[in-house]
Amino acid sequence: MASSSRLSPPKVPMELHVKNREKLLKSLRQHLIETSRPLYGLVLLQGGEEKTRYCTDHIELFRQESYFAYLFGVKEPGFYGAIVSSWLGFSFFFPPILLTMENCHAFCLWLLIVICDVLKDIATGKSILFAPRLPADYAVWLGEIKPLSCFQQQYMVSMVHYTDEIGGVLHKLSNVLEKPLLFLLHGLNTDSNNFSKPAEFEGIEKFEKDLTTLHPILTECRVLKSDMELALIQFANDISSEAHVEVMRKTRVGMEEYQLESIFLHHTYMYGGCRHCSYTCICATGENSAVLHYGHAAAPNDKILQDGDMALFDMGAEYHFYGSDITCSFPVNGKFTSDQSLIYNAVLDAHNAVIAEMKPGVSWVDMHKLAEKVILESLKNGCIIVGNVDDMMVERLGAFFMPHGLGHFLGIDTHDPGGYLKGLKKLEGPGLKALRTIRELQEGMVITVEPGCYFIDALLVPAMEEGSKTAKFFDHEAISRFKGFGGVRIESDVHVTAGGCQNMTKCPRQIFEIEAVMAGSPWPLK
Amino acid sequence: MASSSRLSPPKVPMELHVKNREKLLKSLRQHLIETSRPLYGLVLLQGGEEKTRYCTDHIELFRQESYFAYLFGVKEPGFYGAIVSSWLGFSFFFPPILLTMENCHAFCLWLLIVICDVLKDIATGKSILFAPRLPADYAVWLGEIKPLSCFQQQYMVSMVHYTDEIGGVLHKLSNVLEKPLLFLLHGLNTDSNNFSKPAEFEGIEKFEKDLTTLHPILTECRVLKSDMELALIQFANDISSEAHVEVMRKTRVGMEEYQLESIFLHHTYMYGGCRHCSYTCICATGENSAVLHYGHAAAPNDKILQDGDMALFDMGAEYHFYGSDITCSFPVNGKFTSDQSLIYNAVLDAHNAVIAEMKPGVSWVDMHKLAEKVILESLKNGCIIVGNVDDMMVERLGAFFMPHGLGHFLGIDTHDPGGYLKGLKKLEGPGLKALRTIRELQEGMVITVEPGCYFIDALLVPAMEEGSKTAKFFDHEAISRFKGFGGVRIESDVHVTAGGCQNMTKCPRQIFEIEAVMAGSPWPLK
Repeated sequence: MASSSRLSPPKVPMELHVKNREKLLKSLRQHLIETSRPLYGLVLLQGGEEKTRYCTDHIELFRQESYFAYLFGVKEPGFYGAIVSSWLGFSFFFPPILLTMENCHAFCLWLLIVICDVLKDIATGKSILFAPRLPADYAVWLGEIKPLSCFQQQYMVSMVHYTDEIGGVLHKLSNVLEKPLLFLLHGLNTDSNNFSKPAEFEGIEKFEKDLTTLHPILTECRVLKSDMELALIQFANDISSEAHVEVMRKTRVGMEEYQLESIFLHHTYMYGGCRHCSYTCICATGENSAVLHYGHAAAPNDKILQDGDMALFDMGAEYHFYGSDITCSFPVNGKFTSDQSLIYNAVLDAHNAVIAEMKPGVSWVDMHKLAEKVILESLKNGCIIVGNVDDMMVERLGAFFMPHGLGHFLGIDTHDPGGYLKGLKKLEGPGLKALRTIRELQEGMVITVEPGCYFIDALLVPAMEEGSKTAKFFDHEAISRFKGFGGVRIESDVHVTAGGCQNMTKCPRQIFEIEAVMAGSPWPLK
Repeated sequence: MASSSRLSPPKVPMELHVKNREKLLKSLRQHLIETSRPLYGLVLLQGGEEKTRYCTDHIELFRQESYFAYLFGVKEPGFYGAIVSSWLGFSFFFPPILLTMENCHAFCLWLLIVICDVLKDIATGKSILFAPRLPADYAVWLGEIKPLSCFQQQYMVSMVHYTDEIGGVLHKLSNVLEKPLLFLLHGLNTDSNNFSKPAEFEGIEKFEKDLTTLHPILTECRVLKSDMELALIQFANDISSEAHVEVMRKTRVGMEEYQLESIFLHHTYMYGGCRHCSYTCICATGENSAVLHYGHAAAPNDKILQDGDMALFDMGAEYHFYGSDITCSFPVNGKFTSDQSLIYNAVLDAHNAVIAEMKPGVSWVDMHKLAEKVILESLKNGCIIVGNVDDMMVERLGAFFMPHGLGHFLGIDTHDPGGYLKGLKKLEGPGLKALRTIRELQEGMVITVEPGCYFIDALLVPAMEEGSKTAKFFDHEAISRFKGFGGVRIESDVHVTAGGCQNMTKCPRQIFEIEAVMAGSPWPLK
């Protein structure tokens, strides 16, 4: 069959998750040393479970819990995973064993065993998966019941047991302690305000539980991406960028928004093997493009594309848990009007200005303000707003056009966690309070750069009202031209490097590029 | 854009749900009369809520709870719905009002009001939706905050209030009773063994709760489909049948199974507006086709199609909640071998024999056995099994080749409820215990006819073992030819009519039809 993609799904190295576990162990050890705590304990996470829909037997397509996916890469439901390092074990076994050693010969033998063990496991950490014990008729209905050794090999872990053996196995791994210590995952997700659910199993009361140490350390590990993680995010970006181009090419006046969603989904699954999307597709045209999270059940992608409408398509595929998050904006008829160009270039200039500044040490809040300022300057040059831009910044005028934050971490979650670690608190004020992180950039972060400019009545009408502090900045007549315009967003996924940053997204961005691609030119342009 | 479909999404008449409510009211009244219970009370259902994934803010695409969808057709999350009929109100208000009536004039006035009320509402029942009260910034992030009147019009209900007003509104509707009666939904789903969750709201303790009456009555309403429901199921069948044909045409050796899933999903969404599937696609080839529910996370559609493999593709789209459930089996290279023909025709003959017999009054258990018998006879004629077919039936030999039930009700759920109402108990024995219903057919039922014949080691190896009662029936050498063959399933959705039945599925079924379509012929063949 003729392929319409230059890409194919890459092989996923399970070493990626081995490295993730090593990274966690290293951070955890360092934290324990820094806080003068004993170097023992087991990390235990519970993977996700399959869910049925309401009271029925309709099973939703399973997607692994993200922290569990990060550490173990397991795609099946019903697993647990534990990690113990020999080093932790070593320091823990040391004192009691020393006390019972009665001669030098035995001590030397023991030391040899320990050294071998350390050398063997230091590279991988000792990791244990617990797989669900499946009933015999699973083989008829759901497929082969794989032997445990199969999971051990597939997921590169030290050993695999059944989930009904967790208590016993963990106790055995810590057999000189009466109540072994478990580091469990419990902490706040600052995007959802939900807490992660610590692992639970029968017999957990025989263990001491630490609910505070693991979450911030593991979350921080996820913030800085390894090369293998970056390769997957790059693939998700490549296939999604290509799918966005496909969507641009096929967009026609008279189509339904959801048809473009369908084209995107098909391209990323058909040629990229991406069964999951990073998030529900936002396929907004016309005034819908001013609804930031359009596309959900109460506002589905169901409008017919009208001549003269702008499209705002925010869609990203996920590959082996790692996602992409890309927005393209363009006129559905393939030709920008002067007003459309004005707003589009205001946003593109902000997008490019931010990417030009990004490097380690730069404050994300400054980047957000930079984007606001560039947009305000463009709107002023376009005679849509009037006055001094610095005064506008003081009054936070930018937030009336861009009420969301400039971007967010991206990884296994679309809104990847870690935006407010280490005691950071959310800022106040329009726009700033919506920032999903206020951190300084560091090498290895992947963050979306997604400035936007929208004409949202719910925000602009009060801002322009007589008596409002911001009313003076608006040219009411000019603004009225944009009634029903919607908005423009341009979103790329950017990797912070040692010396700057790299844009992982490869979509047509310049107006001439978009118009050429929509008219049938190949991409990249030749 | 050139369309590759003859279909387009039909307009959905909301009268469908008005009729569903009327039907429930009629059944409920009849039940109350038959059981000599007073004719009062309010039906209250809670719609589904949006769910986030684990601790993140990733929102799963919302799908309404099926009972709620049946009665109200509401596609948004967070709603409640109540139904009260004037008739119920009438008999309920009657005695206390009579006691307080002091003169004939007042009585006549009251009677006039009641009659008008009855005449007005008898057609629709009085139905109340409760919508969530949305925060102001919803308009920025998620779209227009619709006025309540908008929902009233869209969903054709008598009135709409906010969910935080439920207690007050329901009390007002029943204001002469101290503790008004609520009929809540609570009952067993016999496919999942889960119970439906009765509505809950703040202040529910001020109501009397009936948890047993509603579920069987409402479930029975869902079993017998109205013409408007049938039209939607027909559309879901039409677009899915067309998508299956598209898949057949594009299937090539060397493709990945999931690519065919992607083609199916794309066709039904792009041209049918079907955002949801009825169930996770089963795209099985080769030996995977013997895994009945292949395609889930632990056994994803990720095998490469090999020359000589059979494909078994079980996929169905859903349109406005109503689904389809269709399986096509065919050789991936487009040409049946003699062994493939033998097994395929065994299943097709069973499929056709059942449909030829189906009409009101026929027992579904008899249909299941008929399918088994036809398959066994074909296998005997093909020299795969030996002996007397009646003896085989006694030993339940058919269940080793077809371990699942012949079919299930289909509607808003793929496994639509109601298979074991009215005190029916599941049967025992291989195959029979897997039946999702054992009822007699009735006009208006929609039920899948999905015979299959699989070569499943986990079942056949013990059945062929020396000492097993069934060993004598197998030609071991012949059976060994089918090692790794997988299986064949042919599944159509069948509507039981007054005089017989109608197959709603329109896929190529005869071998010559499949081979012609795979070779490029138009469908239907000319």
